[in-house]
Amino acid sequence: MIPVEEARARILAALSPVGVETVALSESLGRVLAQPVTARRLQPPKDLSAMDGYALRFEDIGTLPVTLSVIAEVPAGGSFEETVPAGACVRIFTGGPLPDGTDTIVIQENTDADEAAGTVTILEGSPEGRHVRRAGLDFAPGDILVDTGKRLGARDIGLAAAGNVPWVTVYRKPRVAILSTGDEIALPGDPIGPNQIVSSNGPALAAAVTAAGGVPTLMPIAPDDAESLQALARNAAGHDLLLTTGGASVGKHDLVGSALAETGLELDFWKIAMRPGKPLMFGSFAGMPMLGLPGNPVSALVCFLLFGRPALTRLAGASNTGVTFTPARLGSALPENDRREDYLRADLHRDESGHLIATPTQRQDSSMMSTLSQAGGLVRRLPHAPAAEAGATVDVLVFPDGF
Amino acid sequence: MIPVEEARARILAALSPVGVETVALSESLGRVLAQPVTARRLQPPKDLSAMDGYALRFEDIGTLPVTLSVIAEVPAGGSFEETVPAGACVRIFTGGPLPDGTDTIVIQENTDADEAAGTVTILEGSPEGRHVRRAGLDFAPGDILVDTGKRLGARDIGLAAAGNVPWVTVYRKPRVAILSTGDEIALPGDPIGPNQIVSSNGPALAAAVTAAGGVPTLMPIAPDDAESLQALARNAAGHDLLLTTGGASVGKHDLVGSALAETGLELDFWKIAMRPGKPLMFGSFAGMPMLGLPGNPVSALVCFLLFGRPALTRLAGASNTGVTFTPARLGSALPENDRREDYLRADLHRDESGHLIATPTQRQDSSMMSTLSQAGGLVRRLPHAPAAEAGATVDVLVFPDGF
Repeated sequence: MIPVEEARARILAALSPVGVETVALSESLGRVLAQPVTARRLQPPKDLSAMDGYALRFEDIGTLPVTLSVIAEVPAGGSFEETVPAGACVRIFTGGPLPDGTDTIVIQENTDADEAAGTVTILEGSPEGRHVRRAGLDFAPGDILVDTGKRLGARDIGLAAAGNVPWVTVYRKPRVAILSTGDEIALPGDPIGPNQIVSSNGPALAAAVTAAGGVPTLMPIAPDDAESLQALARNAAGHDLLLTTGGASVGKHDLVGSALAETGLELDFWKIAMRPGKPLMFGSFAGMPMLGLPGNPVSALVCFLLFGRPALTRLAGASNTGVTFTPARLGSALPENDRREDYLRADLHRDESGHLIATPTQRQDSSMMSTLSQAGGLVRRLPHAPAAEAGATVDVLVFPDGF
Repeated sequence: MIPVEEARARILAALSPVGVETVALSESLGRVLAQPVTARRLQPPKDLSAMDGYALRFEDIGTLPVTLSVIAEVPAGGSFEETVPAGACVRIFTGGPLPDGTDTIVIQENTDADEAAGTVTILEGSPEGRHVRRAGLDFAPGDILVDTGKRLGARDIGLAAAGNVPWVTVYRKPRVAILSTGDEIALPGDPIGPNQIVSSNGPALAAAVTAAGGVPTLMPIAPDDAESLQALARNAAGHDLLLTTGGASVGKHDLVGSALAETGLELDFWKIAMRPGKPLMFGSFAGMPMLGLPGNPVSALVCFLLFGRPALTRLAGASNTGVTFTPARLGSALPENDRREDYLRADLHRDESGHLIATPTQRQDSSMMSTLSQAGGLVRRLPHAPAAEAGATVDVLVFPDGF
């Protein structure tokens, strides 16, 4: 049995990002940049007004009140191409470019306009240069706006758009084949024998892969015979990752390892010191990385979160492949831990002062999907962790969106 | 100017969930349940073994070691329909149903099998009922597995699958029309005049709407004339929400309010006491809810996060429409605040002891998209908040995935 961190490190070390593609910026939400987005514009392109008001010469507002002639009007997107002389000003709106000669904005609330006379009286001044957005304040051509490895969100897409970038180069979405094995499982709604259970692993993992930015292929359920397993595994050719569930423990009926060994499986490791999920297999099958998850649905999803999701993140070219833990206070006491790293389903809430409280679910049986669905995250207990009182600080893996 | 909380409450009060549709469970990731998912199975359907080992009568292992005859083998998905007599046991694998007569599992590590003789010697016993998953441990028919209003994640999909539910009834995705206005903006890659800027609001909001579970329609940019605005707004008919950007402040060129007033706009409010984003318009246009965001890209996205996203959540039928703040420690001092609620872009990181540290960006100009893209969240400063030292606790809105 190898430790959790070592297992994850070995998985990540074995993987590298998939190829790239070019997509329209408007299709790039959630995609990972394979080339930096660099600015093609000076932004703002000129000195602009940050307010609605009057653009004027600071030297004209030394003694107040003063009345200036209003010689033009400059909306956002407009312009006034002449030089504004002393004693004059222009009416300007937020985003309007400052005409030559002007250097300061007085907001309209501090003025009294006489439209008939074409004048405005400045009642309260501004410091020199006030309410002016300097050209290039946001970025200049060639600046890296969003860097390689970042998963694009709405804010990044907005910034790329402002930089006049309509196309971006991203890693393509990793393709993940999902193979559930076992004579005992059927898909929801399909005919089901008296001793069978409904397969939750396939649909749940397909959703988890999608939420992590991959494209899942849900393969037909493999019965427990070597030939079917081999045929389905071959059918996974062309994927970036083969995820299997079940058939990874030590019993006679655990065929995945032995069946695939005959047709090109090279195992790196197959047991980790954690709970839930001791049987976790990692290796490659005919050159394709393969992660063998346990058959119990909770174990399968927890192992996906701890190993499969980082693997997908690495394949997707994203820079944050780690698993992030958040400190929380225990809502109830825990006994000392044994040699396996433990991941306990826990209810998460914030107390009145905003502290995150994690209360492990009473029963941690790895077949109970209901408690996994209701939990907010996992409390991590390191191997041989001593008993902990309620209120003690623990590390929590908060479930990510879509998981 | 109305307070932020009141503005959000008025928006939410004016909205109700859109209609429903039935989707395949495998297509339901991120969708919001409109009807509860109830179990159609007893899970586990029978008492099952939780381990690989031997199913036996507890009364047979009073004195150890004891040798029992192995009369059958029960894999997961298999069964043994006879009653196991005293002095006998069955080889059983994880997930295998306990045959009649047996009540306890001894794991294989605690036994010594003699396959030739068809016997096994029990070296170490188990308490009565050990390693047995009772029928119905996870759920029983009719149990609510996932409740109305929950946005489905992979775990929920797994649980619904285990309950034998292949279809779910969800709210359809809210349709959101996005209308950017202003003579000064062009889309990325399109021809652009010397005083124009590239529109980031449309693409950024479309992505933000998608990330929040809506379906965006990005409408052509409306020039600053009333007729075009009215035509485009009419073109938004059939959407669940009309989002506009720009044209909401007080200058002459701010036409959205006045142009739409002529053709069916009913305003609820149009100014809120916050920064960035004072001009925020909410009302309805020809019976369709309408949210008018400011034109500055940072203001537009921040206001979308604080008002548009909760609105979408309400339209989508999800139960968590609120905005959640996380306590953090200030990384640098802040001056006292004025009467407007302030949202400061901030870098977020955790210090060595795991505390969340929020350090507001030096410049908070509402045109600077680069600082919004780089920030991790927003520090909230309530109206008239006193000056705060570095280390003081503040509320942070951590940016959600996809934003």
